[in-house]
Parts: sequence; C-alpha cells; structure tokens
Amino acid sequence: MKSLSELQHFFESGYLDHLPNLTIDCAIFGYHDHQLKLLLVKNKIIADWCLPGGFVKRGEGLDEAAGRITDERTGINNLFLKQFKTFGDPGRNFYEKFDKQNFLELTDIKIDDDHWLLQQTVSVGFYAITDISNTNLEADIFSNECAWFPIDEVPKLAFDHDEMLREALLTMRIHLYHFPIGKNMLPEKFTLKEIHLFYETMIGKKLNASNFPNKLISLGLLEKLDEKRNIGAHRSPTFYKFNTEVYDRALKEGVVLA
Amino acid sequence: MKSLSELQHFFESGYLDHLPNLTIDCAIFGYHDHQLKLLLVKNKIIADWCLPGGFVKRGEGLDEAAGRITDERTGINNLFLKQFKTFGDPGRNFYEKFDKQNFLELTDIKIDDDHWLLQQTVSVGFYAITDISNTNLEADIFSNECAWFPIDEVPKLAFDHDEMLREALLTMRIHLYHFPIGKNMLPEKFTLKEIHLFYETMIGKKLNASNFPNKLISLGLLEKLDEKRNIGAHRSPTFYKFNTEVYDRALKEGVVLA
Repeated sequence: MKSLSELQHFFESGYLDHLPNLTIDCAIFGYHDHQLKLLLVKNKIIADWCLPGGFVKRGEGLDEAAGRITDERTGINNLFLKQFKTFGDPGRNFYEKFDKQNFLELTDIKIDDDHWLLQQTVSVGFYAITDISNTNLEADIFSNECAWFPIDEVPKLAFDHDEMLREALLTMRIHLYHFPIGKNMLPEKFTLKEIHLFYETMIGKKLNASNFPNKLISLGLLEKLDEKRNIGAHRSPTFYKFNTEVYDRALKEGVVLA
Repeated sequence: MKSLSELQHFFESGYLDHLPNLTIDCAIFGYHDHQLKLLLVKNKIIADWCLPGGFVKRGEGLDEAAGRITDERTGINNLFLKQFKTFGDPGRNFYEKFDKQNFLELTDIKIDDDHWLLQQTVSVGFYAITDISNTNLEADIFSNECAWFPIDEVPKLAFDHDEMLREALLTMRIHLYHFPIGKNMLPEKFTLKEIHLFYETMIGKKLNASNFPNKLISLGLLEKLDEKRNIGAHRSPTFYKFNTEVYDRALKEGVVLA
C-alpha cells in the first residue's frame, strides 16, 4: 500500500528506479462455481476500468515484476503468471490521453509533455488463472477500486486493454490444450464430469464430454481412485486425482490434450 | 547494409533514435525438402552464433521492428513474424560479457561501463517459418556470416539464445495445432501424404498419419480436387489445396487441429 507522498515521488523521479519504457499488464482470470471472471481495477486518473499493471523496476525480472505488481494493485499474491504477448505500438502510450489538469488538482504534481511517463511504452502481457474464493482483493493508492467481472460482462476497457484481453483469452485457451490446469482450482478428488465442466467454463463453449477427460487419462495426468461419489444407488461416479509428477512435467514440456 | 561509420554512429548515439532498453530477436525456421532448419548469424563482436536481432527504433512498432531487423541482418524480407515470448532477466544483458578491448581495436570506439548498450535490456522474441528456397541470405555490417543450420545440428548459441530457441520451438509447435500453415511452403496442389510429412518435419516426430489431414479436411481448411497425382496404375493419390477464406479466418481466430 503506497501513500500519497510515495505516489508523488513515483511521478517525479520514478524513472530513476524503473525502466521508463517498460510496463506489465495482467489479465487475471478467476474461476469459481462454473463461472469465469476477470479482475479489473479502476485507476485514480482514468475513468475506465483496466487490467492491473505497472512499471518494471531496474534490476527486476519480468516474472518478478508481474508478481509484485498484481500483489501491489490487487492484494493477490503468489499467482502463477504466464506471458501471452507484448504490446508495443507507438500509439499505445499509457498516459497520453489522461487529464493532466485533473491530475494536477488531485496531487499537486505538474506533468510536462516530456515527462518520463509520456514516453513510448512497451507492455508485457501476463495472464493468470486463480480460484476466486482463495483471493482477497485490496486496491492500492494507484487504484480506487478492484473487482471481479463475469467474462461476458466486461465493460469497455481503457487504453488498448480490450485488445490485450482478446489476446490473453486466445492464448489462455490455446494453452488449455497443451498444459495441465486445475490443481489449485478443483478439489483434491473430483469426477470426470466435474473436470469436463471446468474445461467447458474455461474454454467458454460446449465440448464433447469425453475429449479432455479421455486425453488426461491416456497421458497419465489423471489417476483413478478406488472411491466413488455416493449420489444414489444407480450412479456413483468414480473419483480421480491428478498425478503430480506427470502434471509438473507436462507443465514444463507441454502436451497435446485435444 | 550499413557502413562502418554508421556502425560507429550507432554505438555512439544510437540511443537517440532507439529505445535503449528494448531489443528484438528472431528465430527464423526454414523448411525445405522435409528438413527443418534455423537461421543464425555470427556477430562481429561475439564469437558464437546467435539469432538475428537488434534494437527497436523510437516510434516503431514491434512487428515493424522485427521485419526491419530480419531484413537488415539477413536480407530476407516480408517474413510473417509471430511473437513467442519476451525475455527480461536482469542478468541477460546483451553486451555484458563482450570483449571491449577487441571491439576498441576493431572500430576505434570506446565503450564505458555506463554506455547505453550495457544497460538492462528486454528482448521480444519473434519466430517465422519460411521456405528456404525462396530466401536469399545477405549478412549486414553487424554480422560476419549468416547461415541455415539443420535444427538438430544447431551449435551452442551466444547470450540466452539457447533458451530463446527452446521457447521458440515450443511455441511454434503449439501454434501448429491452432493456426494453419503451409500456404507458401507446399506447392499449390499437394497430396495428404505430402502435408502429413510436412507436419512431421515441423513437429520433429512421427505422427499418426491421419491426425492433421483429417482435422484439416473436417474444418474445411483443405479442399479435395478432381485431380490425382499419376504415379502408377494402382495408387494415384488425390490432390488437395487450401481453402483460402477458411485459412485466413483460422489464422486470425485460431482452431483446434489435434
């Protein structure tokens, strides 16, 4: 949590300990109860909602910066963040269109046209998938608000963040076919129907019921347990769990799940 | 093609028209005659082979920069370049380990420790796939040599380019399952066996003969022609061609080809 004087310090001399041309923006997807949501923040300066983001510090790695920024902006830490694309159109300048007068009144800081925040900025896009019930939102000094939106009710976003979200969703959904997912989102034991519904929610459309489950089993990612969910005499679906060793190797090397 | 005085100018004041912390590196894969190759350049300053790369100019987009850099370094233009990952470890400094004394003798330029080229540099990785027989290599002033290497005979690369190549191959091979490929690499008419062999070469392993061809047909990406290759009385495989409209839409939106 940053104080207002820290914010002023950032605007005045943030370029000394941040790379002036490099930011990170994060599309954080939340799963809960068969719904896919997106985490958005509302900036003090810009009226529209946007993806949480910030500048990379000098000497900081990109993964490290992405973790720090989501932690600072939203209060969520230890996210497994994965790059999806880097955005560098010269026209995408972060603060280009913001209301300097309003900002001056808010903070007493004058922003000249050659201010370091007005330079050409390249942003590395990361996405993460998390279980919403494990998160605890907390907006920092840069953000007024911080909230989860159902993926089909996301409002128009600031800057080029609509395009970022499109690319993040496309990449996340391609990755579903090549990297295992679900270890911290499904209960430890689950039925094939439950993991099928989870994939349908993430991909956002109906799938052939056997596609992902069968492939997960044939690659050894799922292990059948000697235990059934007791939901009545005639249908007691078997429980499965992830094989941690195969799961971790697949995360690193990639697989084909379709 | 740059002259030596242009090179000197770049080292002395390149930061004026380039973003000092941002480079691009390109993994250019070449396909020819059932072989997958990689394009490497040998730098004037560093002994090892590396991926062609360079700094992004101020006001230049990332795609534009990637196109310009591959053109300048290798003589190949109009490549369809696609991002795979951005590299930003603080330890990956491009010129960190290079021989300043040797460089001074070569060029008469003195490089101080706070020189702009010695700062923390983030590099955006792009890959491209091209038909080797359509390319004409031409090294520029930064490179001594420029050559194609069979993918399993790539030497140890400079900097963090081994890791870049690993990530480029992983992403390129994941993309094979989600974006069509082959339009400028296969002849206009081809048999299912030919496109199957093409995919095997790109993926680098044996595949079930029907996997890609069947999926390409069922998604409408391939069209059956009323024409056969005449290779004998008893086996005359049918020709296919790409459906351009479906192909272009799939390139934009992504598909599932496995």
